[in-house]
Formats: sequence, C-alpha cells, structure tokens
Amino acid sequence: MVRTRPLKVALLGCGVVGSQVARLMTAHAGDLAARIGAPVELAGVAVRRLGRARGDVDPALVTTDAESLVTRGDIDVVVELIGGIEPARSLINAAFESGASVVTANKALLAGDGPALQAAAEKHAADLYFEASVAGAIPLLRPLRESLAGDKVDRVLGIVNGTTNFILDRMESSGASYGEALDEATALGYAEADPTADVEGFDAAAKAAILAGIAFHTRVRLDDVHREGITEITAADIAGARQMGHAVKLLAICERAEDGRSVTARVHPAMIPLSHPLASVREAYNAVFVEAEAAGRLMFYGQGAGGAPTASAVLGDLVAACRNRLTGGLGPRESAYAQLPVSPMGEVTTRYHVSLDVVDKPGVLAQCAAVFADHGVSIDTVRQTGKGNKGGKVGKGGNVGNDGQEGRGGEAKLVVVTHRAPDAALGATVEALRSLDTVHGVASTMRVEGE
Amino acid sequence: MVRTRPLKVALLGCGVVGSQVARLMTAHAGDLAARIGAPVELAGVAVRRLGRARGDVDPALVTTDAESLVTRGDIDVVVELIGGIEPARSLINAAFESGASVVTANKALLAGDGPALQAAAEKHAADLYFEASVAGAIPLLRPLRESLAGDKVDRVLGIVNGTTNFILDRMESSGASYGEALDEATALGYAEADPTADVEGFDAAAKAAILAGIAFHTRVRLDDVHREGITEITAADIAGARQMGHAVKLLAICERAEDGRSVTARVHPAMIPLSHPLASVREAYNAVFVEAEAAGRLMFYGQGAGGAPTASAVLGDLVAACRNRLTGGLGPRESAYAQLPVSPMGEVTTRYHVSLDVVDKPGVLAQCAAVFADHGVSIDTVRQTGKGNKGGKVGKGGNVGNDGQEGRGGEAKLVVVTHRAPDAALGATVEALRSLDTVHGVASTMRVEGE
Repeated sequence: MVRTRPLKVALLGCGVVGSQVARLMTAHAGDLAARIGAPVELAGVAVRRLGRARGDVDPALVTTDAESLVTRGDIDVVVELIGGIEPARSLINAAFESGASVVTANKALLAGDGPALQAAAEKHAADLYFEASVAGAIPLLRPLRESLAGDKVDRVLGIVNGTTNFILDRMESSGASYGEALDEATALGYAEADPTADVEGFDAAAKAAILAGIAFHTRVRLDDVHREGITEITAADIAGARQMGHAVKLLAICERAEDGRSVTARVHPAMIPLSHPLASVREAYNAVFVEAEAAGRLMFYGQGAGGAPTASAVLGDLVAACRNRLTGGLGPRESAYAQLPVSPMGEVTTRYHVSLDVVDKPGVLAQCAAVFADHGVSIDTVRQTGKGNKGGKVGKGGNVGNDGQEGRGGEAKLVVVTHRAPDAALGATVEALRSLDTVHGVASTMRVEGE
Repeated sequence: MVRTRPLKVALLGCGVVGSQVARLMTAHAGDLAARIGAPVELAGVAVRRLGRARGDVDPALVTTDAESLVTRGDIDVVVELIGGIEPARSLINAAFESGASVVTANKALLAGDGPALQAAAEKHAADLYFEASVAGAIPLLRPLRESLAGDKVDRVLGIVNGTTNFILDRMESSGASYGEALDEATALGYAEADPTADVEGFDAAAKAAILAGIAFHTRVRLDDVHREGITEITAADIAGARQMGHAVKLLAICERAEDGRSVTARVHPAMIPLSHPLASVREAYNAVFVEAEAAGRLMFYGQGAGGAPTASAVLGDLVAACRNRLTGGLGPRESAYAQLPVSPMGEVTTRYHVSLDVVDKPGVLAQCAAVFADHGVSIDTVRQTGKGNKGGKVGKGGNVGNDGQEGRGGEAKLVVVTHRAPDAALGATVEALRSLDTVHGVASTMRVEGE
C-alpha cells in the first residue's frame, strides 16, 4: 500500500528542534512510510551558516539558500523552524506559491500574521499546521480545532511557558529570589541568554492569542492580549501565597464573557489554590485546562519545549500534511466566523489579593474597606497582622468594619482578597489605597484564579 | 461560504448520549454550519420503542425502523449510539453500503469487530470515527492517531472506567467497603443496575484493546487483554496501600516490550504512588498517561462518561466526518502495519505487593525470602509486623535474611514488595508461599505501577 515516489520535505532551520526532526525522520523512516502510505524524504535542509555539525544530516542536503530550496518545485511539505518574523514569513508564502504545504512551530509569526498566512494556504489549497507553536509536545491545537469542533469552549487556562514555570517552581520549592532562580534556569538551559521573551510574558502572550483565536473562532491579535511578566514577583509574594494555600503561576487565560458576546485574552502571574491541578505542574512542564459547555473540564499536560518533544508535534503535523497530499484532503482552515470583539483588560472580571502596609491604629481597616466599597469592589476576606505579630485575624465579608480591636501606633499589615470585580475597578482601588495617609505602601497585588 | 444543501445525519439511539447529541445539534446549529461549511440536519432518530419523551427531538423524526433510516440513500453520516454488538454492527455495515460515514461510541463493537468495520469503511471510501468509545469527552484517540503519528508510543497507562474509579475513590476517602461504595455509585447513577461490565473490567478491557491497537499500529483483540476487576478489593487493601503511600486504581495498561518486538494489554487493579498524577484522579473522572519516545510523558484528563461529555466527543467526530464529505478528504484509516505479537500476561514484567499472614517464629522470613529467590524474583522491600504491633521493620533488598529479631509464636504479617519480574513468576511465587506450613494465608496480592 506504500507508493514508491517519496514525498519530499524541506526543512528550514536545523537547531535544537530541526536537528531532532531530521533525526526522527531517519530513525522512523519505515514507520512514517507505513503511516502515511508513501516514503518521506528529507530533500534539503536550509541553515543560516554552513560548517557547523548538524547531527546525522547528510551534508549534501544542507544549503544556506532557503528560498531556492522552497521554490525548487518538487517540495511537498516545508517545515519552518527558523522562528521570528522574517525571513520565515516570506519563505512560508513562497512555499504556498510553489504548491507546498507548511508545518511550523513559529508562534510569533502565527500570533502576528496568522490570518494572512491562513489565507495564503487557502488560496493555494495547501495546508498550514502549527501544533508545535503552543505547548510543545502536548496535543492541544488539534483537540481544540477538531475534537471540540462540536462544542462551545468557554475558557482556556494554562501554563504555556516552561521557563517561567521553572523559575516560579524553584522560587517556591527553595525560597530562592527571582534572580537566583533565573540564574539556575539559565545554567540548566531552560532560559535563554536574553530571557525577555519568556520572563516578560511575550512568548505566553503569542500562545494566548493563538489559543483564543482557535477556541473562540475569532481573530485575536497579539496586541489584544494583556501581558504582564514575572520579573517583579518576590520570594515574599510566593511565601504569602503559600500561606494562603495558593501557588503563583504565570497563566495564559482566554475567556468568553458570561453573556457570550465578547472574549478576552491575558497573560499574568496569578495565585491559584494548591488543590488546583495546575498548582502541581512542576519544573518546565506545561499544562492547559479547557472548559467547554458539553465536555466539561479537560486538562492536557506534557513537555512544552525541548528538541525532541517539539519535534514530536512537528512530525505529527508532517504526517497529517503528507496524508492530505496523498488523499487530496485538506486540514482544518482558519475558523474566525464568530468575529467576537476582544474586550480590554479593564473589563475582565478578576479577583485581587492585595497586601498593604498600614499604620497600626484604630479606623484604618474601616478607611481601607471604604475605598473598596467606593469602587464597587466587594471584599471576600481580610487578614490583619500587627507588626511583629505572627498571627492575625480573618474576617469574612461584611465584618471588616469592626476593627475596634486594632493595636495603636507602629505598623500593621492588611491582606485583602476581593470578590470578582472589573479589573479596572480593582486597579483604581489599589491606586486610591496607595494615596491614603494611613497606607505606607502596597506590598503586593496579585490576581487570584482557578477557584 | 456555507453551502445551502444540508448534510443529513441519522441518529441511532436516543438515550443519555443520543438525546444530548440531538440537543446540541439544535442548540449549536449555526456554529456547526459555520465550522463545517454547510448546515447539518437531523434527518431521523431511530429508537427501540416509540412513545417515550425524547427531549427536544421532533416526534416526526423518530422511528423504530433503524434499517430503513440508514439505507434510505440520502444520509451523509450515521451516528450509532445503540451500543452492543447487534443490531449495531449490521446497521453500521448497512450505513457504509449506503455510502454514509459512521460516528460511533461503541467500544464493545470496536474492540471485537474493529478491523472488519474499518475494512468496510475503507472499501466504501467512508469514514469511521470513534473518539467517544474511549474516555468519553477526553480527546484521546485523535491525539494518539494523529498528533503522535510521527512518534513512537511506548506505554499507555490510564483510568478509563469512571464507575470503578468512583467506587475506589469512595472506599479510599470514606473507608467504605466495596459493597457500600457500589451501592452509593448505583444510587448516584454512576453504576448500572447490573454493574458487571464495569466492576469486572470488561468495559476497561475493550478500551484497552482499542488504545493498544492505535498506539502500537497492531491489531489487539479483546481476548488479548488480560482482565481483572475490582470486586475483591477490600477496605483493608486500600488502607494498606495508603500506609505504603499508594492509592489503588483500576488501570488499563498497554505496553511495548523493552526489545520493541511485542506488546501487551491488561486491565487490573494496581497500587500507584500518591505522588503520581493518576492517584489524584477523583470521583468518576478519567485520565490517561501516554509515554512516547520523543514527546515524553503526556497526560489527558476529563470526564469519561455522561450524556453531554460523550456527546461532545461524538459531535467533534461528526464535524470531522461532515468536513470530509464536503472536501472529499478521508480521516485516518486503520493502521495495523506493525503486526506485533501480543504477549500473554505471564510474560509482562510487573511488581507485586504481597501481604502474608505468617507464624511468628524465627526463620519464617528467611523461608519466604527463599521462595522468592527460587522463582527468580528479587525483593525490593519487606515489612514485618508482629501480631498486635503497630510498628514493624523494613528491610531493603538483601537484608531480608537477617530475621533473628523476629518474635516467637503467635501470628505476624509480612508485607513484601518485589522488583520487576515476569508476572507468571510472581504468580507462581505466591502459590508456592501459600503452600508453606508457616504461611497461614495470603491476605492480598496487588501489582504496583507508575513508579
């Protein structure tokens, strides 16, 4: 049943992932041929500079002229693993124009130019697959696009950046500072020399844009995604969260509004209960929760990065693209018919955990509570600790005005957890608290999710 | 882009899942049309008896003549939710002969007649999708068949039966007996009036056959799957496991032998460490671990049964089958090229946890240890408890012969955990222990997995 003429694959980029793709294509050639129905041949490998060792890749296949490789006319599938915008975008477009299908792991390009690339694929009746662009080895986009195609996704909540999860996990488990944990991540190869894209949340934001677009059948641009990184998270934040029974994670959150008329996408650190499955995702692992109307809660867990895991996702897409070349089928197209507006962060309803350094005298709690009330923010719990006190007291809901038992003079700490309120109202509340004479400072503010 | 002529769907069976499929097809008609590229119409619903309320289904669509519905000639996709072998099998074959594609949740039929049904689909250039047959709402078969199509799956380890997980979870959390937990499961609708298929492991075994077939590209028949149920699990087994830091779960395990030349599939209760993610799968939830060469460890988690969750999986398949009708594509075919032999249970290497009631006198431990050694089974840990002692002592590996400190007379308990050995050797060891004069009885034997 295996035809003789092989399908030809051009590999663009032969770094950590590309070299694994080349290796697995050779190691599993027989299996791939049987699963596809035809042998698959690596027809060429484009690299930036010649001369470096490329694992098992036949040197005769290596070229620095990616464009000639892509446009030579006999390529069935182009695997783009260069990353970044250019020349990746031009090469992908050239591939479509030359009649090839494309498999890519390029999240930045997808988040920025996804619609244009999908239109180009459609125009040339080619496939564009990009499973590896989000959460590495974890099958996530295919389940969202295909398995849940008859369901209504309400929420996607996930850890989609392994570097930041590694750093936060280290801070939690060893009490290390952010800087120490980053150094460890760098030493172990989990963080790049310039870690900005990871620690500032750009990488996760690109993934959130891709996930939200697929989940809600709506175009979501990178600019639509609210983004905060983890560089200001302190060991004290994490210890404080732990004391409240929570872990701190950098989350990508895509939500449909309750009325169903708009969606939001955001990336920021958040506290989640230790009982939530995402709280126990360790090291550089990724995990994504999906909540759908009929399916309920689903979770997908696995390695979000690394050469071999990412190559696994690339090869799955490669098999799909090759099968389609043989059968004349086509993979799923862009689905953006819903065209829901993407609301700004201020309109998202969230919960805040606010830690305040306040003057330790009667009336301060009442004064702070009034600020919350003035902004329409309802308080869930408040915990008050006098300077040097290890204990404190916790009030639920309406009891917060009863602060006749406060100490006098010195400094105290107020830790407030709110009910859900628009993020803008919560932000304005914190600003107003900051301006009170009795508030020395806002020690930390963090959103609370997953409850 | 939505064409006018609708795709026609025949629904066979309108019970818990079927009525949800009908409801969602109506509620999400607009979304389904946009995602497929054409409207989808419920053309008929076949039921066993007329007269019962069928939710929102138009009574004019309901018929007891399934065969006429399937063969009327204009049906694009038949959704088979009758279950069991006949008439489901004949109706599916009739659907293919009439040119329709088929979506089914029928695990018993797939595990028994999968190859013949797949051949019929292939012959008629139709699709056969069956995501809902394993682990309900969890996208599992599509990721295995497609996302991991370029990888080598080495192991699938999962909780795939919600009823038994509910019962074991209740026994663990409340200390209930098996009978009490089963009664609760029945009262809450998690167990059927005749729970045999679930509690004896038949349901999980059918799913294991399907999973192993897909994972290893090899035909695995239901008869190839070793099967043990949970009816003999006692509260004491679960308490003993907990004391060792383990939970008891009914697992479906599909493994490739270390030399890669054979595979195995089995369903039985097993102890897994509390730190393993499967140990914290509660209530009737399902979760499946997949270990692949390149992807590493993946986990899929969600609801394994229930009307709406199972309907979500059915609708995902329905969308795929409909898209293929429009584009002329075809879903993945049966892939059984590897043709690996399926080894019997005796050749699987497992670890045993054996609890023995023994005479409390010197030499007994040495005598028992000799029986293990005689069968080529290496001991990992041994724990010895004198009658009435709460404590005990633990020896690692070679120390087990040093039993001069044993008490004299009365009864003691020996708990042994072995290293990996062929299951047949472990079974023979237990039989030999049972025949020793100094062994009053084998209190329990359970395999240990997930370490």
